[in-house]
Amino acid sequence: MSDIDMIRAAAARLKGHARRTPLLSSPFLDRIAGRRVWVKPECLQHTGSFKYRGGYAAVSALDNATRARGVLAFSSGNHAQGVALAAAQHDVPALIVMPADAPSMKIANTRALGAEVVLYDRVAGESRDELGAQLKAERNLTLIRPYDEPQVIAGQGTTGLEIAEDAALRGIARADVLVCCGGGGLTSGIALALEAEAPGLTARPCEPEEFDDVTRSLASGEIRANTRISGGLCDAIITPQPGDITFPIMRRLCGPGLVVSEEEALHAMALAWGRLKLVAEPGGAVALAAALFRPDQMTGDDVIVTISGGNVDANVFQRALSSYGGLE
Amino acid sequence: MSDIDMIRAAAARLKGHARRTPLLSSPFLDRIAGRRVWVKPECLQHTGSFKYRGGYAAVSALDNATRARGVLAFSSGNHAQGVALAAAQHDVPALIVMPADAPSMKIANTRALGAEVVLYDRVAGESRDELGAQLKAERNLTLIRPYDEPQVIAGQGTTGLEIAEDAALRGIARADVLVCCGGGGLTSGIALALEAEAPGLTARPCEPEEFDDVTRSLASGEIRANTRISGGLCDAIITPQPGDITFPIMRRLCGPGLVVSEEEALHAMALAWGRLKLVAEPGGAVALAAALFRPDQMTGDDVIVTISGGNVDANVFQRALSSYGGLE
Repeated sequence: MSDIDMIRAAAARLKGHARRTPLLSSPFLDRIAGRRVWVKPECLQHTGSFKYRGGYAAVSALDNATRARGVLAFSSGNHAQGVALAAAQHDVPALIVMPADAPSMKIANTRALGAEVVLYDRVAGESRDELGAQLKAERNLTLIRPYDEPQVIAGQGTTGLEIAEDAALRGIARADVLVCCGGGGLTSGIALALEAEAPGLTARPCEPEEFDDVTRSLASGEIRANTRISGGLCDAIITPQPGDITFPIMRRLCGPGLVVSEEEALHAMALAWGRLKLVAEPGGAVALAAALFRPDQMTGDDVIVTISGGNVDANVFQRALSSYGGLE
Repeated sequence: MSDIDMIRAAAARLKGHARRTPLLSSPFLDRIAGRRVWVKPECLQHTGSFKYRGGYAAVSALDNATRARGVLAFSSGNHAQGVALAAAQHDVPALIVMPADAPSMKIANTRALGAEVVLYDRVAGESRDELGAQLKAERNLTLIRPYDEPQVIAGQGTTGLEIAEDAALRGIARADVLVCCGGGGLTSGIALALEAEAPGLTARPCEPEEFDDVTRSLASGEIRANTRISGGLCDAIITPQPGDITFPIMRRLCGPGLVVSEEEALHAMALAWGRLKLVAEPGGAVALAAALFRPDQMTGDDVIVTISGGNVDANVFQRALSSYGGLE
């Protein structure tokens, strides 16, 4: 099956399960950006992020006997919740390996969705892969990778089908589509969907400073790793480096990456709160931040941005409002 | 034209202008309420509240010559923004009379949407009506009342058409529909739409303590006024008493009112933030609070609630998160 056929097949499986999120806008955001800003709010997706799409696509693609044994995922939180809910909806067990320093809300939610959660200490160098391999072997589970997995990319790509459809309805033939990017599952999935359905729309990865591995990899043409692997506010999109499957797709189809500061992400969170009435997490706000605060790095009358997730602890959200909630 | 025909005509005029908001849910909210909770997020409507529907319906219903002279509204904020945007979209002037103690974000937004704003001091007893009558006469403006106005009720009633449609898609034949209620424009509009389209769904007004005029009026069968007219956190839905047009509709069609505390509204705001990734204002959260914290006052497996708006200042939102953002 071709990539776009896999995405269309994932969309068919997701129908009636994933939410069809809208494209939102605000004249106040347009004024800041100097162009029309269209927001795809995947924070409104089940489990509060786009990751449910990929999780459901992957779990639903397994044959019954394999699926019944259960699934395993490594995740700092959003992929964890997406896989946990998808597994629960298929009535199969889910075991999730999470870093102990993941946001507490994400750990609690993953457990509440019925998954078994095992924590590891990434800062102390505990090996997630060894722990996972051992658990996988003991229980004969199927690993659902967070991004370097064709069915996951296909699931995330359904976001791109919807963007293409809604852009066409609004007469938007050419625009940058800014995507919050960690390992590249959402970015590569959207890029593949746009290639087939809206070739005038160009996906561009957006990242936080110090975790700009995809931007640097695209610029150099080769995979580059981050030196830090944890500690940033944008936990949802922090990965060691682009994926072996996602990077060639991004290199072929994406425009240059965009990099914003954590403060700019917090500012964008406050603007999403005040102007769109949406809750974004820091990593979920980097694309909006790029649209608002890097206007010179794009062209055209329209820009489309994803808000990839909204799973943020209260203290971080309050920090965004304390600094930028006046919306002056 | 019958009431439902007016609502359908308003829906036709609003098509392509108002956002078609979804019905959202969260397993975490269902667990608290002990039943399935369906949320109609009108905070995602243009201008951050359902009031845009009524404002647009009323402005679009005027004949061209009348509309061209401009419109006038009295409002603590949400009706102001709805009328301001509707007037701007019709390229006609809007003059908005607002209480000086309205949330600063609402005053600023109304101005930014192009309206001329005149403030009055309601606490000192300055007469809004005298001020309005004088401005209306001087400029030959058309007054758009916030709720006791058939075209405004028809516009708000389009929310009920959408609820009826989405409930039918989910097989919900019987349920209470909890509506954040001030003067009763949204409540009576939804009640009329449900009467025609989903007679098993019953609209019920929800109010904050000390401002429960509609609940007391329904219980007594006669219009009862509030003793306080300002000062509560739920500014969006504080009105002196139910309207002369809205009250008979509510008396004929609505179930009993529900009353929650300001603290319960703040708690519901935090849950909407954490579980739905939505920004609700205190007055916009009273229906969700009633669904979550008054489960014994309703029956059935499903309850549908409106979040009527999300225009809240940062300090109030931070108070909700400080108290209830842990979601424990």
